[in-house]
Amino acid sequence: MTLPAETTGSGRTTASAVLDRCDELATHSSAPDGLIERVYLSPEHAAVNALAAGWMRDAGMTTWQDAAGNQCGRLEGATPGLPALLLGSHLDTVPSAGRYDGILGVLSAIAVVERIAAGGCSLPFALEVVAFGDEEGTRFGTALLGSRALAGTWLDAWWELTDDAGTTLHDAFTDFGLDPAAITAAARSSNDFVGYLEVHIEQGPVLEERDLPLGVVSSIAGARRFQITITGKAGHSGTPWSHRRDALAGASEAIVAIERLARDADLIATVGHLEVFPDAVNVIAGRAEFSLDLRGRFDADRDAVWQQIEAMLEEICAARGLHVAVHQTHAAPAAHCSDRLRGVIAAGIEVAGLEAASIRAAEDDEPDPAPEPVELLSMAGHDAMAVAHLTEIGMLFVRCAGGVSHHPDESVTEADVAQALDAFEAAVLALAAGSAAGSAADRAAEDSA
Amino acid sequence: MTLPAETTGSGRTTASAVLDRCDELATHSSAPDGLIERVYLSPEHAAVNALAAGWMRDAGMTTWQDAAGNQCGRLEGATPGLPALLLGSHLDTVPSAGRYDGILGVLSAIAVVERIAAGGCSLPFALEVVAFGDEEGTRFGTALLGSRALAGTWLDAWWELTDDAGTTLHDAFTDFGLDPAAITAAARSSNDFVGYLEVHIEQGPVLEERDLPLGVVSSIAGARRFQITITGKAGHSGTPWSHRRDALAGASEAIVAIERLARDADLIATVGHLEVFPDAVNVIAGRAEFSLDLRGRFDADRDAVWQQIEAMLEEICAARGLHVAVHQTHAAPAAHCSDRLRGVIAAGIEVAGLEAASIRAAEDDEPDPAPEPVELLSMAGHDAMAVAHLTEIGMLFVRCAGGVSHHPDESVTEADVAQALDAFEAAVLALAAGSAAGSAADRAAEDSA
Repeated sequence: MTLPAETTGSGRTTASAVLDRCDELATHSSAPDGLIERVYLSPEHAAVNALAAGWMRDAGMTTWQDAAGNQCGRLEGATPGLPALLLGSHLDTVPSAGRYDGILGVLSAIAVVERIAAGGCSLPFALEVVAFGDEEGTRFGTALLGSRALAGTWLDAWWELTDDAGTTLHDAFTDFGLDPAAITAAARSSNDFVGYLEVHIEQGPVLEERDLPLGVVSSIAGARRFQITITGKAGHSGTPWSHRRDALAGASEAIVAIERLARDADLIATVGHLEVFPDAVNVIAGRAEFSLDLRGRFDADRDAVWQQIEAMLEEICAARGLHVAVHQTHAAPAAHCSDRLRGVIAAGIEVAGLEAASIRAAEDDEPDPAPEPVELLSMAGHDAMAVAHLTEIGMLFVRCAGGVSHHPDESVTEADVAQALDAFEAAVLALAAGSAAGSAADRAAEDSA
Repeated sequence: MTLPAETTGSGRTTASAVLDRCDELATHSSAPDGLIERVYLSPEHAAVNALAAGWMRDAGMTTWQDAAGNQCGRLEGATPGLPALLLGSHLDTVPSAGRYDGILGVLSAIAVVERIAAGGCSLPFALEVVAFGDEEGTRFGTALLGSRALAGTWLDAWWELTDDAGTTLHDAFTDFGLDPAAITAAARSSNDFVGYLEVHIEQGPVLEERDLPLGVVSSIAGARRFQITITGKAGHSGTPWSHRRDALAGASEAIVAIERLARDADLIATVGHLEVFPDAVNVIAGRAEFSLDLRGRFDADRDAVWQQIEAMLEEICAARGLHVAVHQTHAAPAAHCSDRLRGVIAAGIEVAGLEAASIRAAEDDEPDPAPEPVELLSMAGHDAMAVAHLTEIGMLFVRCAGGVSHHPDESVTEADVAQALDAFEAAVLALAAGSAAGSAADRAAEDSA
């Protein structure tokens, strides 16, 4: 059975409304033919920030755009100026994207703040929502720019990164109306936050295979990304084998070997970008540039396989008279979700599951015990990895059809989103209850001192 | 020792002048940083046509640009209106090209006509020079457009071919000031010509390895070109192996297998173009498109290997859950140079070799017998393949450094060009002598009839 959005209760932002907002954001795209592409510091970025800001204000928040172009909102807690629980995700996309990766997390956060504000609940912390401007790294090749600005881990070397049109990140900032010199103003302090929670689609098949709508993230796999350049010599396509130094033939052999090495070590490796020069039908490739995205459960395993890949690249290129150069473009260690925030996410899922089960029981007369929350390793990277430098993190995964993401077919059900909203709200309230209990215990300890 | 250009005689176009013209043409490029790229129906095409037309007129020719944008010139023979010996090559280039591929042939043809016109020689045929506008197929993906227009083998289907900017060949014609409806006016008749001779750099290492400046082409290997599209499914780079349908991984495996199959069969195969979609670091490739250029000494061997490649593509894609589509973009059977024109080219090389040897002997007192002309198979395609539909063909190859072509390093020596000019002139005169003898024999035969 499908759980209709209307059952989530009157006066509360429904799953249906969240999905409508996902559809509306999807129309802000630089790609033709209904495809979605929305990159950092683009006109589309400005447009969705404005929409998100409006929804944040509707939810009762004060709003601002920070010095890195992240859209932010805040709802005060029981007293003004308390540290905040930060809820968020990102609004930028890959090319030919789906409409939920990142976006669902931002809109779920806004919806949950709206519910809590509407409920008149006084929390022992403020609530902040952040819509990060860059998580995917589509435009400048380096990911998590938005969340790393907030975490205070911005690197000045990034200013010289260029997009495909040759625009530097520095110039893109000024074009967007931001002041590069003010970037440190985006950096927040650990003292500002009590924690960070993020809702995200799973981008993997586990929840679907286990017939579960939601899951708790245990940790986020660390990723390293490399730009690999193989150089040979361009030449006429009639050149005999003895005189060829074909960069694409070498790259192809390397890509096949990368796949084998990673698979054997139970790691994930992706070569998603490849460019050939001069790229003509009748010219041997003189140069091939490709990306490698390497991720795994344990950083040490991943690093060991990278060493094997480097040795393999040298070997293949030596045998073919080619030269290889590698350049690391991104490195993120595995990020672990804190026990406390895993606990509140799990508690939220249980509450939402019980609610859903009780509705099913009432409607269908089929009592159906809610299953135990499942813990998942995220093979995808998330803003939470960057925010982990600042405060403890927790993540709630939502089932997506076929595990498909980074593709127009990305899909979620309204019923699953409804349970996710309930679970996320319940998680925030569970954290508030725990904090209040903690504060009471603190006070009791102080009193007895 | 080097043979200085001045020794080619007073009043004759020198090798040095021909190389200066190559340098001048190289400045007409759409590519930045001194790189050479000059494609069909571009402003650069118009500019080099104008230069070539001027040099043709300086050589004594009347000139016109034909309905396909080929630049043409004509010098009448003993009487006006005789069938012509056609001399030519092309002025378009690949991306990041050298400055001699095609260009040296056009400029050698003009120089030889200039010498013969200056010598006041009355030939039993007219001389025509053609500078073809498209041999490489860089802009529209289909090669030999210029020579196929002249040969009358133009296909109406080509009008819908598009360049990278989406401009159709039809629109490119009108933008260039040509009338697509008039294309058949470019087609010449077999009766117009007594034969076709082309000078070209070897684009291979044989002459250099044998320490020879010039060679006679026996035949031109047939080439087939294909566009191969492998379709999988784009997805997040964290997707587990079990759920991946990675089009680039499949394409890489195929490129490695193509290399093995072609090499084992003593054929040449080149994948020079490859494009990946959506081409992002963190997205599995949903589609990979690549070119295949397959050429060999015998058409039947080449076609047999293509069948093996097709079966291999199906097998790899079936195993990976991918789909493959192949589309042939070009097919040219092997073209054979006629015995008569191979003979006159060989005779020309011998004359030039004797001249060079006599100069060396006079200067160095080291008599050095000229070696026998060597015959070469051309693995590169040439305009001569298209012209072979119309008249018999012959080709003279000039040594190029390291066999390198389709690369900025493409290089010839002035001494080799000087010998090539002498040999090409001598070949034309040898054909004239043979024709005169043939005509005399014909007349004798007629007289005795």
